[in-house]
Amino acid sequence: TQPIKDPLREGEAFLHQMFEENGIAGGLEARLAQMQQEFSERGTWTHNLDELTFGARLAWRNSVRCVGRMFWRSLTVFDARDAKTPQEIFDAILSHIDWGTNGGDLRAAITIFRAGEPQIRILNSQLLLYAGYQQPDGTVLGDPKNLAITELAQSLGWRGRGTRFDILPLLIRIGDREPEIFEIPPEKVLEVEICHEECEAIEKLGLKWFALPAVSGMALDLGGVQYSAAPSNGIYQGTEIGSFNLGDPRRYNQLVPIAEALGLDTSRNNPLWRDQAMVELNRAVLYSFNRKGVRIMDHHTLASSFEKFCQREEIQNRTVHGHWPWIVPPLSANLSWVWHEKGFNKTILKPNYFYQK
Amino acid sequence: TQPIKDPLREGEAFLHQMFEENGIAGGLEARLAQMQQEFSERGTWTHNLDELTFGARLAWRNSVRCVGRMFWRSLTVFDARDAKTPQEIFDAILSHIDWGTNGGDLRAAITIFRAGEPQIRILNSQLLLYAGYQQPDGTVLGDPKNLAITELAQSLGWRGRGTRFDILPLLIRIGDREPEIFEIPPEKVLEVEICHEECEAIEKLGLKWFALPAVSGMALDLGGVQYSAAPSNGIYQGTEIGSFNLGDPRRYNQLVPIAEALGLDTSRNNPLWRDQAMVELNRAVLYSFNRKGVRIMDHHTLASSFEKFCQREEIQNRTVHGHWPWIVPPLSANLSWVWHEKGFNKTILKPNYFYQK
Ligand code: HEM
Ligand code: HEM
Repeated sequence: TQPIKDPLREGEAFLHQMFEENGIAGGLEARLAQMQQEFSERGTWTHNLDELTFGARLAWRNSVRCVGRMFWRSLTVFDARDAKTPQEIFDAILSHIDWGTNGGDLRAAITIFRAGEPQIRILNSQLLLYAGYQQPDGTVLGDPKNLAITELAQSLGWRGRGTRFDILPLLIRIGDREPEIFEIPPEKVLEVEICHEECEAIEKLGLKWFALPAVSGMALDLGGVQYSAAPSNGIYQGTEIGSFNLGDPRRYNQLVPIAEALGLDTSRNNPLWRDQAMVELNRAVLYSFNRKGVRIMDHHTLASSFEKFCQREEIQNRTVHGHWPWIVPPLSANLSWVWHEKGFNKTILKPNYFYQK
Repeated sequence: TQPIKDPLREGEAFLHQMFEENGIAGGLEARLAQMQQEFSERGTWTHNLDELTFGARLAWRNSVRCVGRMFWRSLTVFDARDAKTPQEIFDAILSHIDWGTNGGDLRAAITIFRAGEPQIRILNSQLLLYAGYQQPDGTVLGDPKNLAITELAQSLGWRGRGTRFDILPLLIRIGDREPEIFEIPPEKVLEVEICHEECEAIEKLGLKWFALPAVSGMALDLGGVQYSAAPSNGIYQGTEIGSFNLGDPRRYNQLVPIAEALGLDTSRNNPLWRDQAMVELNRAVLYSFNRKGVRIMDHHTLASSFEKFCQREEIQNRTVHGHWPWIVPPLSANLSWVWHEKGFNKTILKPNYFYQK
């Protein structure tokens, strides 16, 4: 986590920004005084619901690696600061999954648990993840990215079914107590089987992915307060599933089976067979989600929306900070206008979301 | 151009590096003394042929935007410091084009003209370029990237044939005299017509590209001496032609005609048609070059070679500096190992090649 430098100053700066950006006429001085008072008594302060909501949205707007920021004002914020036990936290997360998934018509949301000590932590990097099992022969069954969290779950007594697509349980930890394990009921997890409009053999590969991308490992750093558990969800950009999760050699590594299903020439005569398979896998992902009525966005549409976001920010006299390598899509990268903006400022503004150890 | 900070110190540093890297036993002190002597008399110094050769190679090795650096030791250096008139310079360039093209079996080379005042400049950014003509309706015939140099050539009396693929003449300038114009004889320019193994309609589009990528606008900054004219050539990475030159909307913008030739569904039902067309165009480029026996490299092979380069440099205890957005290919970017190395150090070491105003 980015260490907070001066919580009080950050709190003040946030209140100033909130009142100013929203053109709130009066009350800033009073709220500042209140905040400073609480600070002097408790060493921290309590956001009201407006502050929590605006702050979480602002943190999204400031996320340099996110290309989906045009929608920053649409974030729905669930205040779960009263959840105390791991069970209560888990229940709030289940509600979040339900509400965000919305039967396929996904909605961006964040659930914010209380800040402070003892720290609440969701040990999973995302709410939904597939397990990865190290096999005796050195290969991995499932998602190689999740080997560590899978082992941790197993060491706590969890046993997966042993398929490539076992949804991991949530590991919720309070302070330095042992993490508690919660199995997500399968009916809560909307998944999409991957098929290809023109190639039936691809459906036979039995690939699928879940609908809801929901980051849960990052802390929301807001006005001098660190929310160590604040899972949020957006909507998938197709390439995240096609190019990364399923297509990448370090992940599900499906380009060889996809190429075989497509009947591609994979000899040296056709050095770009991987690129062909990659595009078709990405097409299959978009097609499958659309067919099932599950919201997903292609990288062209998102690049345009991000351009609109940047234009709107400019009108507001605000600079968009961005981290180029994350904003540029991995497919036909130079078709995105961002390709030509190699000089993005990647300084991190606060409030923001930060990785945690 | 990067201004030289301290030519004498840079000269000394270069000699030290050259003697040390090449394990040259004696003679460093004598050469340093000689160099310092010449410096005190003339304010600059003269590289011998070994220094020129090693320096030009080192400058390549230090080029942060180049993914072809595994071959840095293979650079052939032509010493043309005795060329005086624009005609002599042009003749040396023609020899370079011949030698580098080598009937399709391309070889990396650099021709170095004299440093110092009055400055010799090749105003073309590359030795071979296609003209771009602004049309009355606002569109561009030819390569939009070369509008300015085309206008300059025209203002000096040049008239192109008015096709999409007119090779520009070379504009050679000495000091602030008027640039002289030299037409490159067509038989010196090896070109490759673009066709696709499986789709005949692509050949009908009449696309082509030249074989020899030869940067001529950059200065070689070597040991405190700036060579303002030092054209060099390598070999194309396929994506430079497929994704950038022909495929990019800001360049020849051929994705729509390619998609039509392929009979792709370009409706909203198929949001990735551009990505399909891009891969097929890139495949066509590689296929056409290979069929004609003209050397070209695909981005997968080059990514591997660059990995080997980095490993070799590490063995030598040297850090590879690189500029991520240029090293990562625009196609299936995450299949390149470089994708995962977002933390490349992009500091520019000298000697190196620099843009000039
Ligand atoms: C609404 C639709 C959204 C879309 C289409 C979207 C898209 C993306 C994409 C494509 C990435 C890059 C992921 C990768 O390369 O692995 C990303 C990263 C990120 N997004 Fe968004 N996003 C959305 C919503 C959100 C929301 C609601 C938040 C927070 C409130 C958010 C915060 C972030 C952050 C912090 C990252 C960086 C994650 C990391 O470093 O692992 N995004 N987003
Ligand atoms: C031998 C085969 C070579 C290959 C395959 C190769 C490959 C590449 C590629 C793909 C780029 C990026 C171009 C772009 O994105 O527009 C590049 C840039 C560059 N290369 Fe190489 N290269 C080769 C030889 C050379 C040589 C011989 C030199 C110099 C002696 C050189 C110096 C550079 C420089 C300075 C750049 C940056 C150009 C710019 O900023 O416009 N390369 N190279």
